[in-house]
Formats: sequence, C-alpha cells, structure tokens
Amino acid sequence: MPSDAHDAPIMEAIAERRARIDARLSVAVSPGEPVDLYEATRHILTAGGKRLRPAVTLLVAEAVVDTEPASVSYDAFPTVDGGQVDLMAAAAAIEVIQSFTLIHDDIMDDDAMRRGVAAVHEAFDTELAILAGDTLYAKGFELLAQTGASADRVVEAVELLATTCVEICEGQAMDIAFETRPEVTTEEYLQMVERKTAVLYATAAAVGAVLVGADREVVDAVYEYGLESGKAFQIQDDVLDLTTPSAVLGKRRGSDLIEQKETLITVHARDRGVDVDAIFRSVDGEDEEAMDAAVQQLEAADSIAFAATKARALTDVAIDRLSVLDDSPARSLLVELAEYLITRGY
Amino acid sequence: MPSDAHDAPIMEAIAERRARIDARLSVAVSPGEPVDLYEATRHILTAGGKRLRPAVTLLVAEAVVDTEPASVSYDAFPTVDGGQVDLMAAAAAIEVIQSFTLIHDDIMDDDAMRRGVAAVHEAFDTELAILAGDTLYAKGFELLAQTGASADRVVEAVELLATTCVEICEGQAMDIAFETRPEVTTEEYLQMVERKTAVLYATAAAVGAVLVGADREVVDAVYEYGLESGKAFQIQDDVLDLTTPSAVLGKRRGSDLIEQKETLITVHARDRGVDVDAIFRSVDGEDEEAMDAAVQQLEAADSIAFAATKARALTDVAIDRLSVLDDSPARSLLVELAEYLITRGY
Repeated sequence: MPSDAHDAPIMEAIAERRARIDARLSVAVSPGEPVDLYEATRHILTAGGKRLRPAVTLLVAEAVVDTEPASVSYDAFPTVDGGQVDLMAAAAAIEVIQSFTLIHDDIMDDDAMRRGVAAVHEAFDTELAILAGDTLYAKGFELLAQTGASADRVVEAVELLATTCVEICEGQAMDIAFETRPEVTTEEYLQMVERKTAVLYATAAAVGAVLVGADREVVDAVYEYGLESGKAFQIQDDVLDLTTPSAVLGKRRGSDLIEQKETLITVHARDRGVDVDAIFRSVDGEDEEAMDAAVQQLEAADSIAFAATKARALTDVAIDRLSVLDDSPARSLLVELAEYLITRGY
Repeated sequence: MPSDAHDAPIMEAIAERRARIDARLSVAVSPGEPVDLYEATRHILTAGGKRLRPAVTLLVAEAVVDTEPASVSYDAFPTVDGGQVDLMAAAAAIEVIQSFTLIHDDIMDDDAMRRGVAAVHEAFDTELAILAGDTLYAKGFELLAQTGASADRVVEAVELLATTCVEICEGQAMDIAFETRPEVTTEEYLQMVERKTAVLYATAAAVGAVLVGADREVVDAVYEYGLESGKAFQIQDDVLDLTTPSAVLGKRRGSDLIEQKETLITVHARDRGVDVDAIFRSVDGEDEEAMDAAVQQLEAADSIAFAATKARALTDVAIDRLSVLDDSPARSLLVELAEYLITRGY
C-alpha cells in the first residue's frame, strides 16, 4: 500500500484541524474544582491523541457545504441554509466522548498506559477515573447542546450520540465476554468492533452532516462511511498492537495477546488450527523474544495479512459511500483519511 | 413533626405515579444483548425505589398546566401552548440517570447493598457495573431526546441535565475527598450535598416545567424548590442512616459511620467537641451495640436534632418557592412531597 503517497496531505490537513480542536478542548474542559477531579478529567484529553474523530466531523461538514477546508471559522460555520453553527463544539463533543470511553475501558481492561502517559486510574485512582469518565460523558452532551444549530438538528445529534454511547457499552461488554469464551466467529468479532469502535466514527461523521443541515441521504451515507472505516481502523489497531514497538504505540506492544483478547487475527489463526491459547500463555509484558515468536506464528498463518485485507475491503466500501457528496477538497481528504486509517504506522 | 398526617395523600399520589413510572422504565430499559450487560443495567432499576425524582417531574408539569393529577396520559401530556409531550419519557430519563449514579457510587464507595438487593458490582462485577452505569447514562439522554417536546425545549432540558451530571460528579468527588480530610465545614458539606444530590431533584423539577413550556420565572423557581428540598432529602438520608434498622433501609445501618463519611451530623458533632474519629473507629458492620452507642453519642451532642432542624429550614424555603405556581392539587402535592422528604422513615 502506497502509504507515503497518502500520508502527507491528510496528515497536514489533520494537523491543522488538530491544533484548533486541541485549543477548543482545553477551554471546553478547563481546570476546575474539585482540582483532583478536573486534573483526572483532563489527563488523557490533554495528553495528545490524533483527534481523528473530531477531524471527521469537521471534514464532513466542510464537504457538505463545500467550504475551503480549514479556512473557515469552525465556531461560526455555515449551514446549507444560510445559518451558522459552532461546529467545533460538536467536534469537541465527539473527542470528549471518545476520551470518556478510553478512561473507563482502561479501568475495565486494567491497561496501565494510554497515549504515552499513565492511564487515569493509575495516575489517580479508580474512583477518580470512574468520575473523570462520567464528567466527560456529560460534557460531551453539554457541548453538543451548545452548538447553536437549529434545535431540531441538535436533538437529532443528541439522540444519535446517545444511541451510539449505548452501542459502545454493548461493544465493550461483548469484548469483555469474548475473553472468557472458547470460540468467537469473524462475524461476532466484527459486530463487536462495529459497536465498540466504529459507531463513534460513524456518529462523528453523521453529526457533522446533521448540524449543517445535510439531507437524510447524505447523513446516512457519511454515517456508513464512518462505520466501515471505523471497523477498518480497529482492525488496523489490532495489527499495529502486534507489529509496532511499545514506544511508538504509547502503550505495551502485544497487549491484546497478553490480555488474551480475541481479535480478527486470533480468530483467523484459530480457524487455521493455530493454538492461540498457547500463544496467549507464552507472552507477558517483559519478554520481547516471546512476543516476537508469537507474532511470527500469527504471520505464518497469514492471519495478520488476512486482517489487513479485511481492513482494505472495508475501506473500499467506506470510500464508495462518499460518492453521495459532490467532489470537493474536503471529500478528497475524507478519502485520504480512510486510507490513512489502514496505512498508519501507529 | 406530624408525619402521619402528611404521609397518606402524598404516598398515594406517589404510588399512583410510581406504577406508571415503573411500567415505562421496564420498556425504556428492556432486556437486550449482551444479556449480562442488560441484566446488570436493569438490576437496580427494577429492584424498587420510591421514584421520587420522576414523580417530581410529573407533579411539576401537572402544576404548571394545572391538569387533574394522575388522570392524564403522561405519554401525551398537554403543554401550556396547546402541544403535547411524552412527559413520562423525561421522568424515566431522570430515574435512569439517578440509577446510573447509584451504580457508580456503589462501586466507588464499595457499598454492597442497594434497594435491598446486592449492588451491581457485587451481583455481577465491577466491569459490568461500570458499563451498566454508562449504558443508563446514555439512555437518560436518549429518553430526553425522545420526549417529542418542541426542539428548543428539548435542547434546554438536555443542556440542563448534562450540566447537572457534571455537578453530580463534582459532588461525588467532594464526598470522596472529605473522607481523607480532617476538617469539613457545614458550608462545604452543604455545597457537596447540593451537587451530589440536590441538583438532580432540581433538574427533575425544572425539566418538567421546561418541557411543558413554563416561563423562565417558573422554571427557575421549581429548580430552587428541587434544590432546597433535595438538600433536605440528603440530610434526612444521613439521619435515617443512623436511626433506621438495616432491613428497613435496604442497606447496612450506619454505613456512613462505618465508611467514615462526614455528614452534617458528624460536622456538627466535631464542632461540639465530640471525638468523631473515635466513633468512626468504634463501629463496624456487625456490632449493633457499638452502633447504638455511637448513635447515642451523636444524639447527646444534639447533632442529629441539628441536622433535622436544618432539613426543616431548607424545606420551608423550598415550599416558599412554589408560590410562583397557581394553587392546584399538584402544587399541594409538591408541598406534601417536600414535607415527606424530611418526615419519611426510610
């Protein structure tokens, strides 16, 4: 895959938007009282992150109204019917919700690191991590209610985000349940990934369209764009977890294997007769050679290649759904973004 | 306080509404997949509860439009301007949010019992309890978005609920912080109670007014009604925690002392020179005589009476705020409800 050719323009486009997203997040979730709570609430939110989901919100809105990408004010963004909306509040809402899920997931999965820093429950404690997630959860809905879009569009966005959060919980519950199940099918795994990860990409895209007044066909199409590329993103995440050094990942390499998590890769390997349980038992957080051997076994079974091929196919479907939009620089960037999600190195 | 005289009509009024609230909750949060997640999500929600907060939502709306209490369809409730709203969806939203806070609080406080059954993290596990709370959190906003009220009113209600949820988190963080602080003032304690408990009563009241189209003065006044009676409710809860047998409470009697939680009672006792830390050390979950002795010490310092007097004063303020409403059967019930909150025996 020609990742270098793809990476440059989209990375620049995301970097431009990231700086503005970061600035808004810093204001939207500012330090406050109780001090501990707000430090915990801001800990992951201000520790970096690629801001891909909020960037999708911005890019979809740009594509719908065909503005010059990144040249507009996102605080007073034009709608299709001559109004204005604080689109950046919606983008921030999406990132804030994403942050909440990371904090609670890290408690449940007992992951110690996130975005290169200690997870919130490690840097503070579990109580504050639960509360920090809960605080961000509400902030997300508060931000969405404050976009200044026409009220019917806000209500649609709120309902969509709420339904999405329910699905994210369902996906996380499935993910946890898979840990203690002997068999998981490819279909079940993809269903889990759709709920746990992809629906928030889908909603990030759809909210951008809803708030600027796109019609139903466009909203549905960009939702599907987000859904398919979100699934591809997660599969690529599973690949990267095995193939990328810990320092680059910002968390422990092979953590899925160490936590005995089923992924599309292990499901495929099991189908090919690989003793995945033995692989699970062979790895721990310290022994890099054991991890290398585990990854080699999965490579030999073509399981990593299988996952990459699946991610490619999902991305093709996602990009196809963008044909509902007129050609525009922002639409091109959404295509590039979908490509980036499966070619990125971390 | 003539609690018998007060209890009868309001208890009947609440019971009527509770049956209808329960029916809606059972549909709004129905069994689903993953089965474990939805069982955990419904565990506390279907285990009883007095449904006081959603009853406030209904009663306020009844008082604003002056309908015959409990004779209307709450699914198609009249607004002041001739519209209709699914008021029961809003009432359910309030109870669902309340349930989410109980589930997460019980994890943080390591409380084993709730509403006479095992807390969710005990009946299931911490992971599912976090997720069950998170699921209800989203369901609350989803329900509010589905009331069918005019969109500007829904947006106002969503923003209010979101801001309230942030404050609830702040209150819970303060409550946790108090456990490890040597001195807590009465003012700080009341500030904590306002955020942790009272704002949801306030919002339950205000949402009922907002959705049926009450004007700003009424919305603000019923918010304050809920806020003051909510504080009184929590203080009465602190009193009951010491004075009511475990079987009646549905949780361990004296759990606040066992968990070394500061309440208005212990803050007052410290001011009076009582060695509250010694009281904390003297009690555990088993020894009823030690608990009796601890309670007697707090009674001897007039600390329990002080708390009851404070609750009475807050209730008077709350009832005074209802004068913004025309006289109606529902307004009378709101007065009775405020009285009930501080005269109830559990």
